[in-house]
Amino acid sequence: MRSTCPISQTLDILGDRWTLLVIRDLMFVGKSQYGEFLNSPEKISTNILAERLKRLETSGIIEKRAYQSNPPRYEYKLTQKGSDLRPLIREITKWGIENLKDTKIPVFLSKKPD
Amino acid sequence: MRSTCPISQTLDILGDRWTLLVIRDLMFVGKSQYGEFLNSPEKISTNILAERLKRLETSGIIEKRAYQSNPPRYEYKLTQKGSDLRPLIREITKWGIENLKDTKIPVFLSKKPD
Repeated sequence: MRSTCPISQTLDILGDRWTLLVIRDLMFVGKSQYGEFLNSPEKISTNILAERLKRLETSGIIEKRAYQSNPPRYEYKLTQKGSDLRPLIREITKWGIENLKDTKIPVFLSKKPD
Repeated sequence: MRSTCPISQTLDILGDRWTLLVIRDLMFVGKSQYGEFLNSPEKISTNILAERLKRLETSGIIEKRAYQSNPPRYEYKLTQKGSDLRPLIREITKWGIENLKDTKIPVFLSKKPD
């Protein structure tokens, strides 16, 4: 039986480092295309990226739009439900900066103190 | 090379649903012993639980104390660094309640509106 705990259910969708790194890239780094996500310093693999984008779309957190038809190419953006993850990502960032060594405030975050 | 991004580094430690469910149990449900974590509705397996407890201890998020010596038995509690995860867990909960169907505000959270 599925837990009704909101923490457990949220983690069913987001409880995976790669998923949240894709959301970080969409939310703060201004990335939207497949190749851009692949170029992040954490080096996500293509099969994990494809699976996570599909899962985020199914969950209603991102949506995709074709910007080229032949060959088909898509760009991704956060829905409102996805944008609502901002306070959560901000708390992750804050805890990391305050508690882990060798973290730097990323340029994309220092520009957006909000 | 390891990313200096605080989001990435935090997810290296926490980016896994089981880890955060153990922290939930410690923080809000008042659990502290091995067998108590095993009894949560999500049914974590013993080998995953043992690995996650070890990792959380290594990361300085929890500490363990022997409460019985023969056979040895331990109880676990959050350190200050672990307690500082409270705002993050709260944002996870809030997003889940607002965005996912079939979530209920858990009794342990409704008792602690803070």
